[in-house]
Amino acid sequence: MWPEPAGKVAANPRLQPIDGMIQTIRRHPNGQGAMSKANLEARYREYIDCLNGRDWANLGRFVADDVRHNGRPLALDGYRSMLENDYEQIPDLRFEIEMLVADPPRLAARLRFDVTPEATFLGLPVNGRRVTFHENVFYEMESGRIREVWSIIDKRAIEAQLG
Amino acid sequence: MWPEPAGKVAANPRLQPIDGMIQTIRRHPNGQGAMSKANLEARYREYIDCLNGRDWANLGRFVADDVRHNGRPLALDGYRSMLENDYEQIPDLRFEIEMLVADPPRLAARLRFDVTPEATFLGLPVNGRRVTFHENVFYEMESGRIREVWSIIDKRAIEAQLG
Repeated sequence: MWPEPAGKVAANPRLQPIDGMIQTIRRHPNGQGAMSKANLEARYREYIDCLNGRDWANLGRFVADDVRHNGRPLALDGYRSMLENDYEQIPDLRFEIEMLVADPPRLAARLRFDVTPEATFLGLPVNGRRVTFHENVFYEMESGRIREVWSIIDKRAIEAQLG
Repeated sequence: MWPEPAGKVAANPRLQPIDGMIQTIRRHPNGQGAMSKANLEARYREYIDCLNGRDWANLGRFVADDVRHNGRPLALDGYRSMLENDYEQIPDLRFEIEMLVADPPRLAARLRFDVTPEATFLGLPVNGRRVTFHENVFYEMESGRIREVWSIIDKRAIEAQLG
């Protein structure tokens, strides 16, 4: 999750997927949305499965409507556009969880990628070469969904592989 | 904590600072070194104070002798050299904790920098300009000290500021 979206996507009010909210309330009768560490980790793994399955119809179960990414108010539609754009640039994109550190409502993940971007990626002329790199990323959850993301991609690792 | 060291520094056997170990054992009579979340966070803040104070004599209280950084077996001496080199490149270097996510024995931190590298930094011609950027970094602790570090600096943020 790294490219800038083509432009700021207008917020598009929509019906909230209700199942995630109901699950959250069932687990937490106080309604405060403070998931346990185990539940937060399990939910994050489901989110990564959703990304790897390109299951955009269910993205709203894991990502809040007013999600922010590196300070930008993308909203759910903009977040989905960002991910779809990632898959266009990197047809073999796959998110692999290498490390998880959860402390509700926050979670940090070290993600690993072993992929083949088709053209330029992060401004680098990858052009179909295979590269491996990591993303270190923090999330803040609210009512069981991702509300804010702070992500850094290891661009230097890719530069080193391009020589 | 980002530049490559000048070379691999030979391991230099030394007496272990014993106070940190004793504290750990006192807190955890089982001797497994599994600090509580609160203790881990407090210890990490002390480590950051140690860096900001350039208190290299006490670095071994927080960093293990066989520490690894982004897969490189730096050892404590190499780690110290890396930090001293950071301060040479960036005389006004200061580590600011923006976010902590602790789940012993691991901790993730989002660090913020607002600094003035003197010359090139990460291969970029900063040359005395003031730049702000983040580091997302994971740590694994062992017996109360940092055993392994996985760090990514937001190079793209610096590039964007240099225009």
